[in-house]
Amino acid sequence: MGGRASGRTPVKITVLAGGVGAARFLAGLVRCVDPADVTAICNVGDDLEWHALHVSPDIDTVLYTLAGREGDEGWGIRGDGTVTLDALRELGGDAWFRIGDRDLATHLRRTAILRAGGTLSAATATLARALGLRTVVLPVTDDPHPTMVLTGEGELPFQEYFVRRRAHDEVRGFRFPGAAEATPAPGVLDALAGADVVAIAPSNPFVSIGPLLEVAGVRDALASADGHRVAVSPIVGGQAVKGPAAAMLRSLGHEVSAVGVARLYRGLVDTFVLDAVDAALVPAVAALGLRAVAVDTMMRGEEGRERVARAVLEAVTA
Amino acid sequence: MGGRASGRTPVKITVLAGGVGAARFLAGLVRCVDPADVTAICNVGDDLEWHALHVSPDIDTVLYTLAGREGDEGWGIRGDGTVTLDALRELGGDAWFRIGDRDLATHLRRTAILRAGGTLSAATATLARALGLRTVVLPVTDDPHPTMVLTGEGELPFQEYFVRRRAHDEVRGFRFPGAAEATPAPGVLDALAGADVVAIAPSNPFVSIGPLLEVAGVRDALASADGHRVAVSPIVGGQAVKGPAAAMLRSLGHEVSAVGVARLYRGLVDTFVLDAVDAALVPAVAALGLRAVAVDTMMRGEEGRERVARAVLEAVTA
Repeated sequence: MGGRASGRTPVKITVLAGGVGAARFLAGLVRCVDPADVTAICNVGDDLEWHALHVSPDIDTVLYTLAGREGDEGWGIRGDGTVTLDALRELGGDAWFRIGDRDLATHLRRTAILRAGGTLSAATATLARALGLRTVVLPVTDDPHPTMVLTGEGELPFQEYFVRRRAHDEVRGFRFPGAAEATPAPGVLDALAGADVVAIAPSNPFVSIGPLLEVAGVRDALASADGHRVAVSPIVGGQAVKGPAAAMLRSLGHEVSAVGVARLYRGLVDTFVLDAVDAALVPAVAALGLRAVAVDTMMRGEEGRERVARAVLEAVTA
Repeated sequence: MGGRASGRTPVKITVLAGGVGAARFLAGLVRCVDPADVTAICNVGDDLEWHALHVSPDIDTVLYTLAGREGDEGWGIRGDGTVTLDALRELGGDAWFRIGDRDLATHLRRTAILRAGGTLSAATATLARALGLRTVVLPVTDDPHPTMVLTGEGELPFQEYFVRRRAHDEVRGFRFPGAAEATPAPGVLDALAGADVVAIAPSNPFVSIGPLLEVAGVRDALASADGHRVAVSPIVGGQAVKGPAAAMLRSLGHEVSAVGVARLYRGLVDTFVLDAVDAALVPAVAALGLRAVAVDTMMRGEEGRERVARAVLEAVTA
C-alpha cells in the first residue's frame, strides 16, 4: 500500500474490536485516515440485559470514544451522573453494573429499536449517526452471542465475572453458547474481505477478540483476507494494559507476554506489533512466522492514540 | 360504622383510584386511619411501554403521593431531573412522555420484575415496600388492560391522546381491548367485599374509574359490596378539578356537572359527595336515589387532603 497510510488517504481499514483498548486505537485511526474508511467489528459477548434494557458495553465504548465523549476510565460518558442508579439502589434494584444517566439514554434507544423489531446493527447505526460518527460500527453478529466464563466458582456470564466479581475468579476456559447459531451481521464479512488493512486491536484475545472469531465465517474471512493483517499486543512488559488478559494467559497455560498473544494469532495475521519495551521479544515473535515490529503502543491522550495508529499503519507498509 | 372513622380507628377502606385526584384523596385518608387499613385499587388503562419499560402512571402517582414525594403538578417525583430524557432526545428517541431521572428507576425496577416473570401486583408491592408504604396498592388487574380513546382522529392509546396530543381531540368513546381477558389482581375482589367503606376517588369517571369497572367481577363486587359506598365528584362548579373529565362529559352527551357524574355512578354507590359550591345540586343528586352531601372537596396541601378525607368518612357515617 506504499505511502497511502500517511495522511488522510483512501485506505480501507477494518478493526476487530473489544472495548477500551480498541476504542482508543480506533480513535487514533480516524485521525490518520478518513473515518468513513474505518470499520469496527465489535464484540457482543459482554452484552447484558440490565433491567430489561439491552446494554452493549463494547459497542458503547467504541461509540463514545469515537465521539470524544468517553469517561475517564474509558467506559461510560465523561461527567455522567448516577441519579437513576442511586434511585434504583434505593428501590432494591441490582446496581452492581454501573449505568450513568446519559449513558442510560443509549440503552433505552437501542432497546426500543430492538423491541420494535430492529436489529442490533440497525440500532448501532442509529446511535452512531446520532453521535455524528462517520466510522462504520458493526456488531459482529445481530444474534445473541454471550461469553460464558468458566471459573472455579462455576460458569459465569461475562459481566458477572468481570464487573460483579471484579475478575477475581481464576479463569479455566470459555463457552460461547450462541456461537453455533450466530451469523455475521450485515457488512462484517465484506469488511474483512475488502479491507486494505485488517487490524486486531490491542484487546483481550480471549474475551474480546475470541468471541468475534467464534462467529461462523469470521475466522475464515480473517485467515483468507487479502489485505494486510496486523495485530497489536495488549500485553506490554508482561502486563495487560487494562483488564484481566495477563491473568487469563497465565491461568490458561499460555506464556504471559506479547509472544503468548502472538502465538494465539498465528495464521490469522501477517504482522504483530508489540511495545518498544518488549523489543527483545521480536525474534521470538518472528520465530512464529510473523513479521514483528516494536513501537511505542501506549495510547496516552489523543496524540498518543494517533501516534500508535500511525505507527501500526506504517508497520504494515514497511 | 358510627364514630369509627374519626381518628385512627380500625376501619377498612378501599378506594377505586385514578391518578392525581385519587392519590391526594388517599394521602388524606392515611392521615385519618391506619394506612395499613387502606387499599387502593389502581387503574392500569393508561399504562404504556416506554422504550421497552413498563410505565404505570396512575400507580406511580399513588405511590409517590403516599410517600410524600410527588411532583408539584401531582405526577412524577418532586425536584426530579431530565438528564436521561434530554440525552434520549439528542439520540433521536421519543421524548414526548416525560420521565424524570429518579422516576426512571421505578420503571426499571418494575420492568425487571415483570421480565423475571413477576406480576404487576408483585412489582407494585415491591415498590410500595421500598418507598416505606403500609397502604395496600393494587393494580386492578395483572393483565394488559389498556384504554383506547375513540376520537375524530381515530382510536388512540390513552397516553397518545392525553400527553402526546394534550387531550385536544374530541372524545367519542372508549374501547377496552383487554377487558375480555383481564381478571382482577389478587386481593381486588376481597378488598371490595371486605371493606367498611368503598370510595370512588375524585377521578375521571371514564378513563380512571371506567377501566376499573370493566375488569370481570369488579363492577359486580362494587354493586354488591356490604360496606358503605361513596363517590367524590371530580367535577366542581361545572369544571374538572384536573384533566379532561368535563370535556368528556360534554362530548359524550352527559350533563357537565356533579349531577352528570352522579348519574354514571347510580347503582354503584350509596352516597355522593359533591363540592360545597355545588350545594344547589344536592336535590338533583338525591333525585337519583343517592344520599347527597356537599362539603369542601378542594385538596390544597396536606391539611386540605386530610380535611376532605375526613369529611367523606364523616359523610358516610352521618
